[in-house]
Amino acid sequence: RIDGQRLWRSLMDLAEIGATPKGGNCRLALTEEDRLGRELVTGWLRDAGMTLGVDQMGNIFARRAGRRDDLPPVATGSHLDTQPTGGRFDGCYGVLAGLEVMRVLDHHGITTEAPLEVVIWTNEEGCRFVPVMMGSGVHAGIISLEDALAAKDRDGDTVAASLERTGYAGDIPMGSRTFGAYIESHIEQGPVLEAEGIAVGAVTGSLGLRWFDVVVTGQEAHAGPTPMPYRRDALKRAAELIGDILALADPHQPHGRVTCGEFELYPNSRNVIPGRVTFSVDLRHLESSTLEQMEQALRDTCARHDEPGKVTVELRDIQRVPPTPFDANLVNLIRTSSDTLGIAYRDIETGAGHDAVFISRVAPTAMIFVPCEDGISHNESENATPEDLEAGANVLLHTMLSKAGV
Amino acid sequence: RIDGQRLWRSLMDLAEIGATPKGGNCRLALTEEDRLGRELVTGWLRDAGMTLGVDQMGNIFARRAGRRDDLPPVATGSHLDTQPTGGRFDGCYGVLAGLEVMRVLDHHGITTEAPLEVVIWTNEEGCRFVPVMMGSGVHAGIISLEDALAAKDRDGDTVAASLERTGYAGDIPMGSRTFGAYIESHIEQGPVLEAEGIAVGAVTGSLGLRWFDVVVTGQEAHAGPTPMPYRRDALKRAAELIGDILALADPHQPHGRVTCGEFELYPNSRNVIPGRVTFSVDLRHLESSTLEQMEQALRDTCARHDEPGKVTVELRDIQRVPPTPFDANLVNLIRTSSDTLGIAYRDIETGAGHDAVFISRVAPTAMIFVPCEDGISHNESENATPEDLEAGANVLLHTMLSKAGV
Ligand SMILES: NC(=O)NCCC(=O)O
Ligand SMILES: NC(=O)NCCC(=O)O
Repeated sequence: RIDGQRLWRSLMDLAEIGATPKGGNCRLALTEEDRLGRELVTGWLRDAGMTLGVDQMGNIFARRAGRRDDLPPVATGSHLDTQPTGGRFDGCYGVLAGLEVMRVLDHHGITTEAPLEVVIWTNEEGCRFVPVMMGSGVHAGIISLEDALAAKDRDGDTVAASLERTGYAGDIPMGSRTFGAYIESHIEQGPVLEAEGIAVGAVTGSLGLRWFDVVVTGQEAHAGPTPMPYRRDALKRAAELIGDILALADPHQPHGRVTCGEFELYPNSRNVIPGRVTFSVDLRHLESSTLEQMEQALRDTCARHDEPGKVTVELRDIQRVPPTPFDANLVNLIRTSSDTLGIAYRDIETGAGHDAVFISRVAPTAMIFVPCEDGISHNESENATPEDLEAGANVLLHTMLSKAGV
Repeated sequence: RIDGQRLWRSLMDLAEIGATPKGGNCRLALTEEDRLGRELVTGWLRDAGMTLGVDQMGNIFARRAGRRDDLPPVATGSHLDTQPTGGRFDGCYGVLAGLEVMRVLDHHGITTEAPLEVVIWTNEEGCRFVPVMMGSGVHAGIISLEDALAAKDRDGDTVAASLERTGYAGDIPMGSRTFGAYIESHIEQGPVLEAEGIAVGAVTGSLGLRWFDVVVTGQEAHAGPTPMPYRRDALKRAAELIGDILALADPHQPHGRVTCGEFELYPNSRNVIPGRVTFSVDLRHLESSTLEQMEQALRDTCARHDEPGKVTVELRDIQRVPPTPFDANLVNLIRTSSDTLGIAYRDIETGAGHDAVFISRVAPTAMIFVPCEDGISHNESENATPEDLEAGANVLLHTMLSKAGV
């Protein structure tokens, strides 16, 4: 059984790094704060007797030897980077639950048959650098290393330069580390488990995701003397578009999701009619065919609002991740582990992308969810109870041991 | 008669400073570019034999002695600061037309009865620092010096610090320079004169202006797992609001104008439901009573969209400038000067605010407009013909001489 208090303390210690005024965290991928978070956690992993390696994307692999090192390791992990106004649990819980499993095994002097690994993936959040789930995506061969290293943040800084600067440009060739199984624990980031009073979710798969940018171009002109009929106001059109785009989720409830999270206006001056707006669109659904319908509706909506010579609308593809089922046997093992431990569980899908989604392409993969307060995540007030976090980590421990063999 | 080519050359030389890729200018108020522009122009004013003084707001007064220095000067001028993507004529034309008048008088060895002045007002554009028309507003006692010096840009830099840094924190006490008359020349920044093929507008007065900020507050949450009905999406509400707010101009055509020019989204991350949006509202109309109706409608619209506990809408007052008639005698003098010179003119109102609007509170004031291409201003492609600029400057010369006496 894991030590819930030790797990909680580690989470709170990590949350000191990049702490925000409202009790959350800002450790954007590959910034100085992210580096400090990684230093703290890799120190703990070393103290737990693990051997560390870093690949070309800065993914960190901490290995605990098994009795049979010819067997592929049973791995767990997640990410330490956060949103600009992120919480203390998103990602960190998955890494530190893994660490806690290793600490417990050490404490009891247990050696598994197969080796165990705790992995810290680089840039899961995708908010500083796109694509999202970058480190795991390159590991799984879905994103090319070249594209990932060349990705730029808003200030033009690249992933390659940030890896060098933070000291995480490692030398392990991409994808050369393989897993016998990968089990990631995470807060749900949605309202289902809390509402039903259930401690553990056995995640059966993930919603698909499609990301786009919309560029609306009008013409800058003076807010005072320019009569209304002469205007080519990019913001006016963008506002109409956003209304229509957000409504694209309506026919596809309860699983359809549409979000516009980024928005940039140019030249952004109080007395200038906006000349250009760029905003992001995030479409999600459990069914590929519905996601396809939603994309088609998005394309139609943009085309309908495109008025050449007046205000134009351009749609740019950014990223797509198909709906992904997890490994049925591994999901079942999570169910039986929960049963064995007497922990209430239910099947659930994840609306968020996770490193596990990409890893599932190269290894049998599943996820363990625990409830979070009011289902709120990507928010400084993100919260979870020590009891639920402990329950989830116990299921992780039990599942990893079953898989690795004692 | 003024030298149209020399005037054009000076305009083009000035436009080299802070030149933008698309042929416009970026010399935001009290930045290094603005300082360089001021250095160039004050050099020219000194070369034309003028005596320079700078007041506590960085307003620059260049004086040409008259035969009777007990008389208050007849002044002209405008501003050298620009929008982030501004043009080569907005403001600069008013200052350099004044300079050209002085050069012509020098060339012909003419001394006027009353002294003449060319004034460069600080921060007319109001895009780096609010309030707009700041230097002239403090001069006219409409804005307090204290408030103006404390105004901050988006990075928290103040007017006071920027004045010190650029060397324009002068010692002339505010408002101690008085004028017998103030005549400002400017491009129209609207479509009327060009459409009618008329070179000169005798500006009878200005539209009133009311500025506001709207703050929409929802709750940040994850774009993936958060079901649509749970969302408190600040951008969704802001988009609806902007549609309704821009439509407030409809019942008040042709003189009603509504613009939302600034827009900031928080936390601005692709996979976070927006928690907060702040945007600006600029209302303009020729009639005070209509402006009041428009403001009331804006307040009603914001109240209608305010939904405590879900998404709240707050309206903040930023600045108000009433509709302002110019001095009837001085407007008439511009008409008769145009007639005398055989230059076609018409009466016109200004939709843009100008330093003249504030100066009209403390001196007889009028303005001379010239056409600009397609009525486009606050845009890098802002353009005007050398012929129209010359015609306007000739009317300025004639009007200043009539007023100052030869
Ligand atoms: N778990 C998580 O917050 N992932 C971020 C990627 C996404 O947008 O779903
Ligand atoms: N002339 C001019 O562009 N003034 C800026 C102030 C305004 O917004 O009207």
